Amino acid sequence: MQIYLDCIACFVRQALDAARLATDDEQIHEKVVREVLRLAADLDMSQSPPAIGQQIHRLIRELVGDDDPYRELKQRYNRLALRICDELKEGVRTSENPLETAVRLAIAGNIIDLGVKTSIKESEIEEIINDSLTADFDNRQIEEFRNVVNRAEKMLYLADNAGEVVFDRLLIEQLPAEKITLVVKGKPVINDATMEDAEFTGLTEIVKVIDNGSDAPGTILESCSQDFRNRFENADLIIAKGQGNYETLSDVNKDIFFVLKAKCPVIAKDLGCEVGEMILRRSQAYRNAVDFSSGGQIDARI
Amino acid sequence: MQIYLDCIACFVRQALDAARLATDDEQIHEKVVREVLRLAADLDMSQSPPAIGQQIHRLIRELVGDDDPYRELKQRYNRLALRICDELKEGVRTSENPLETAVRLAIAGNIIDLGVKTSIKESEIEEIINDSLTADFDNRQIEEFRNVVNRAEKMLYLADNAGEVVFDRLLIEQLPAEKITLVVKGKPVINDATMEDAEFTGLTEIVKVIDNGSDAPGTILESCSQDFRNRFENADLIIAKGQGNYETLSDVNKDIFFVLKAKCPVIAKDLGCEVGEMILRRSQAYRNAVDFSSGGQIDARI
Repeated sequence: MQIYLDCIACFVRQALDAARLATDDEQIHEKVVREVLRLAADLDMSQSPPAIGQQIHRLIRELVGDDDPYRELKQRYNRLALRICDELKEGVRTSENPLETAVRLAIAGNIIDLGVKTSIKESEIEEIINDSLTADFDNRQIEEFRNVVNRAEKMLYLADNAGEVVFDRLLIEQLPAEKITLVVKGKPVINDATMEDAEFTGLTEIVKVIDNGSDAPGTILESCSQDFRNRFENADLIIAKGQGNYETLSDVNKDIFFVLKAKCPVIAKDLGCEVGEMILRRSQAYRNAVDFSSGGQIDARI
Repeated sequence: MQIYLDCIACFVRQALDAARLATDDEQIHEKVVREVLRLAADLDMSQSPPAIGQQIHRLIRELVGDDDPYRELKQRYNRLALRICDELKEGVRTSENPLETAVRLAIAGNIIDLGVKTSIKESEIEEIINDSLTADFDNRQIEEFRNVVNRAEKMLYLADNAGEVVFDRLLIEQLPAEKITLVVKGKPVINDATMEDAEFTGLTEIVKVIDNGSDAPGTILESCSQDFRNRFENADLIIAKGQGNYETLSDVNKDIFFVLKAKCPVIAKDLGCEVGEMILRRSQAYRNAVDFSSGGQIDARI
């Protein structure tokens, strides 16, 4: 997905929020905003939004002199998610459709996104979990997802944020975990999950975890390590969590299921859904490519 | 009031909204956004927000090649306000406190601000009128306002937007109109009222109307005509409508009553009120100056 003009005001606001979170020094806040404005003025709009996010957060880390300004917040969200994890797990176990419940919860976990909102209250999280369990959801996508997962041999699960990975764990436990590699970011960026978060939340005990070598808040393939790109190339299914992964991979011809909550109007428009909708969606770019080569027999490929 | 860092994302969003309203040409939208980003990157933050608003809207008018892109919308809001005017007038007439009701309605009229929100539905306007008539409101300010108005001889009423001026008319009718001069903008900027709007809505029939010679969406004295500045200097009371006039005049040592709805968090913070609050407030800069010179006897001056 390309950058839309509507994204730009949001970049500026997010950069200021992030700068304030990273330091109380108002001169640095101003410097960050001015630099982001300069950067945005000459922006290549054909990039995906996380490409500028990557530059903005590099800039903030450099100006603030802190390579992980979100560390404390990430830990707070990890602990918060771990506290409610057992209860959620029990909910999945006793559900009539555990896979669907786990997908719903994985999407609920996607609310913990400080790129979109600087802070979130614990009570809000409980409310959104309850909403996510009851909201309308097209479960035909669940069955397609189940089928594709069952036939896949090598899957990458691209994680999104710290805290959220605990919810991802619930979904991974419903899948053949031995065929899955969880992918975290190579370096800290915003509140995206890194190896530290995967270890802290126990994900490394149930699934193989690698990092993608990149500090983009999404999956910009050119920015990732060669090792990750090889694995991406060789995987027969990608499960991509969150907006950043949708924004960076929506145009890639690869069998991808996007799992996210559409949190902003631009992404909702791109997805053709309402803001706030829960999305489990197989890549349209992949469907189009398969349609083109096989005359519409997408299922013949899986 | 100076520009806060929080204002900048809002400038970018407003510029894009305004560009889209002015033309369907997406290349111009992009050009406007890029130019505004450049302008903002080197911004003098000690200016008031309307100083950059003035530059942004000059830029849009120039790039679009239209000296009044909001003309149609202004006319639409003028007509809309005129349609409901008689009913509102009757409401003021039969009110227990006509001055308070008229102030409440003048503030309700301040919702018609396309600088903050690109469009507003007719049903929303009715709802906000009803809310404005019943919302909490510190009526001690009303009595102070009444006293100051009764003692004043030369008053300027600084209008804000088209459409809104019809609501201002209700308030002016509760004041000694012969001592009031209504001031509109010298040239079109956003949906700010100009002489055309004052004439169309019949304001010119009940009160003397002048323009301030400026195209700033507020009252930047240095940007106004010498004639207006003389009148401003000589007036013993200024009634200043809307956010733009608050932002540009809040630090001026002059007896001013600000009449507005605090529509954004930055202004609300500056005013020390909640977003959405209705404000009738005598200038703090003036109070401070009088306190300093008279030992707190502000009323001795009026």
